[in-house]
Amino acid sequence: MKTTLLDTTLREGELYRCFKLPVKLAVAENLLRIGIKRIELTLAYPPRTSIEDLRKILKFINSLNGESVIHCRACKEDIENAGSYEAWGIAIYMALSKIHVQHKFNTSNREELLDKLAESVEYARQHGFKYIRTTVEDSSRVFLEEGVDKVVEFVETLRRIGATIVSLPDTAGLLTPPLVRSLFSEIRKRVDMPVSVHFHDDYGYASANTVEAILAGVDEAHVSILGIGDRNGIADLYQVVAPLMDIHGLDLGVKRELLRELYLNFSKLTGIQIPFKHPLSDEARTIRAGVHQFMVSKAPEGYLPQKKLEHDFKKPLFEATPFISKKLLEKILENSNINSAQIKELAEYIGMKAYDNGGKLSISMLYHLLREKGIEVSRERLVEYFGYEKAYTLIKLRERENIEEVFREILNWREIESAEKVQGDLDIILRVKLNPGEEKFLEKLSSMFGRKLQNVSILRIID
Amino acid sequence: MKTTLLDTTLREGELYRCFKLPVKLAVAENLLRIGIKRIELTLAYPPRTSIEDLRKILKFINSLNGESVIHCRACKEDIENAGSYEAWGIAIYMALSKIHVQHKFNTSNREELLDKLAESVEYARQHGFKYIRTTVEDSSRVFLEEGVDKVVEFVETLRRIGATIVSLPDTAGLLTPPLVRSLFSEIRKRVDMPVSVHFHDDYGYASANTVEAILAGVDEAHVSILGIGDRNGIADLYQVVAPLMDIHGLDLGVKRELLRELYLNFSKLTGIQIPFKHPLSDEARTIRAGVHQFMVSKAPEGYLPQKKLEHDFKKPLFEATPFISKKLLEKILENSNINSAQIKELAEYIGMKAYDNGGKLSISMLYHLLREKGIEVSRERLVEYFGYEKAYTLIKLRERENIEEVFREILNWREIESAEKVQGDLDIILRVKLNPGEEKFLEKLSSMFGRKLQNVSILRIID
Repeated sequence: MKTTLLDTTLREGELYRCFKLPVKLAVAENLLRIGIKRIELTLAYPPRTSIEDLRKILKFINSLNGESVIHCRACKEDIENAGSYEAWGIAIYMALSKIHVQHKFNTSNREELLDKLAESVEYARQHGFKYIRTTVEDSSRVFLEEGVDKVVEFVETLRRIGATIVSLPDTAGLLTPPLVRSLFSEIRKRVDMPVSVHFHDDYGYASANTVEAILAGVDEAHVSILGIGDRNGIADLYQVVAPLMDIHGLDLGVKRELLRELYLNFSKLTGIQIPFKHPLSDEARTIRAGVHQFMVSKAPEGYLPQKKLEHDFKKPLFEATPFISKKLLEKILENSNINSAQIKELAEYIGMKAYDNGGKLSISMLYHLLREKGIEVSRERLVEYFGYEKAYTLIKLRERENIEEVFREILNWREIESAEKVQGDLDIILRVKLNPGEEKFLEKLSSMFGRKLQNVSILRIID
Repeated sequence: MKTTLLDTTLREGELYRCFKLPVKLAVAENLLRIGIKRIELTLAYPPRTSIEDLRKILKFINSLNGESVIHCRACKEDIENAGSYEAWGIAIYMALSKIHVQHKFNTSNREELLDKLAESVEYARQHGFKYIRTTVEDSSRVFLEEGVDKVVEFVETLRRIGATIVSLPDTAGLLTPPLVRSLFSEIRKRVDMPVSVHFHDDYGYASANTVEAILAGVDEAHVSILGIGDRNGIADLYQVVAPLMDIHGLDLGVKRELLRELYLNFSKLTGIQIPFKHPLSDEARTIRAGVHQFMVSKAPEGYLPQKKLEHDFKKPLFEATPFISKKLLEKILENSNINSAQIKELAEYIGMKAYDNGGKLSISMLYHLLREKGIEVSRERLVEYFGYEKAYTLIKLRERENIEEVFREILNWREIESAEKVQGDLDIILRVKLNPGEEKFLEKLSSMFGRKLQNVSILRIID
């Protein structure tokens, strides 16, 4: 059975970070381009959020044959409201676990709530929705407290009242893969109703849980870019799609080779950086151990997954640590006429210096150290192997210049690691990858913004 | 069967970041205090790393009844070297997958390598080690390419040559939980030999894989603090221990309630911050959706795992987003004599302002907005619910002052989010949580460092 991915970056993800219309349109376009058709949005609640924005984004998704889904509460007001838009589907949520029922609705009568849900589904049907999802918030707790029988009972009821698919979210992130396997393989056996999953990441298992659920044959699985969402977020699009395709050979209809680009675009659009420990981070392709560097300089797939090398990273990066490999140095300096005794000595010297420097050498340190030893190597060659030098850039604009405009433009630059607006003597603080050098970056800033800049300073980060 | 955790922050983790002796001693002490006895270290390779440091850290671990394990290559030189220290155990590694054998040893004869390994194990035995682990690097690839039979064959051989435990690492991060389950339940059935696991995180599944392996009954599992290691690192100590104890009720001998403190200490010692999406990050306890805020203000465990609230976080944090909850506002302003119609209006106004501001309001914005509306509420009360205000602090020291000394001291402060040394017009750039305010933080800086400071400026971050 094939699972449909639903991306909820623009709904669940909006709880982590609100997006302006141009960002929403660009995110939707990027998702549709890589093959994710089903995109979820929140109902507009004016004056806090804009009806007009929602109309525009829906129109855009529809025009590209996307499947737009509006997420709303199980009440007449919301359903009618959702029905006034041209959305493809509707998702109606209602909590049925004991603790939620007690604190949200001040009752213990779940029948009454199911009746309200049935009524909402009926309204949705009257509005002509073909996809009517009912979300049983906190389902995992129902499973943990009352067993799979109770979950099955709810699903049966929801099928009877006319929902076309039921979502069984792990609202408080309480499950691990073994529990997911046991819950969803049982659900699959016992209920003839399309099922959707949505895992929260409170213990860090949202993506692993989603992989299990998809392998157990669920019909729809929710993901977001970088896994953003309320609290610690939900399953991460890349972490679900990439291993399912690369390792399990499962085709989810996603253009695998465009995933990294999607993530880089998203970072530029929103300023949300790919964090340390994410499989697409620069750290994920940086090889530090000497024996690993030795191997990777000959066969990168010995340490980096082959498919990640094919689709995500063109090449690994290295670091000049106490463990730096002689073979790697030999390769980098291959036109320098150094013999192997000299290479050995040099590796030990670099290692010692890296140790003294707290564990690694920056590219400039390495460059100067090599020059001291009489070895000529271009900075560009070092950058090729060791990645980037990092620096802060502090920007003060002239008065009356539009900070937001400059900020948005800069966020799009490839060399920006992070960018923040500040209040005080400065306006913008950037963390940048200097590649090739700071002169070039300063030139770029001044040719782009010219007279808008009152002051710019660059501070290289000492690792 | 009970699995022993081996922490390899000071070995595998050292590939991500080298630590100086005082940091190593503190990390070891923290680990032993929470109940993790088995700690792995790398053999010293002078002049790059220091024999004396290794002796001191080993002595310290031994004095606290820890089980120190030295990691080294399968060659006579390394084993003899390792034998000269007073370590409790030894871990000898050697790759046996086809690709590693070919590129590292330039051969296809694995028998020859097994002989070399047998010889190394024999040396280790002569040195009196009771714990002799042999690590079959890249075992997961052997499993994927040649099947479980080949892995079993290697394990049998290693048992015969006298290893006391065999480690079967997923060196290139190629496995997911379903594959781990199938591999290790099979291994358990077919081989009578203690087995250890070590999962790399290239696809983000190291922790989930470790949980599966432990549930499948392996004898030893490798973790590191924050999962640091080469590339994307390995399994994360918290992410393995917390869900196994909280969800699966498995006692791994770890003091659950001290885990967050361990992580906070580690961050202060090393400057490595708990990243976005980690279960212990501030994001993981921040509630943004209005319906969630409403529930959490009454019953936090409705959205946050109960055991995380008990052991990790005293309370949740909130954000002033377009979705801010009326009930939450009511609670925050409970002594302000505002009626519910005014609360509703206020919530809509805050929501609108948050939307206009790009999705949320900082604490000062909220404070000023409330004052504009004639509502008096202390900054402290807002901080209690909304966490911290964030700011950059730029520091220039007087000439001849020891930057490293100041830097190390500052890293230990609770309010520091990140700290970096820079070259140029400044010396140190901090990202801080201002709590309660910038005046207090400036006072702290000047009372601590006084005349050492040439210049300090604080720049509030505009979210």
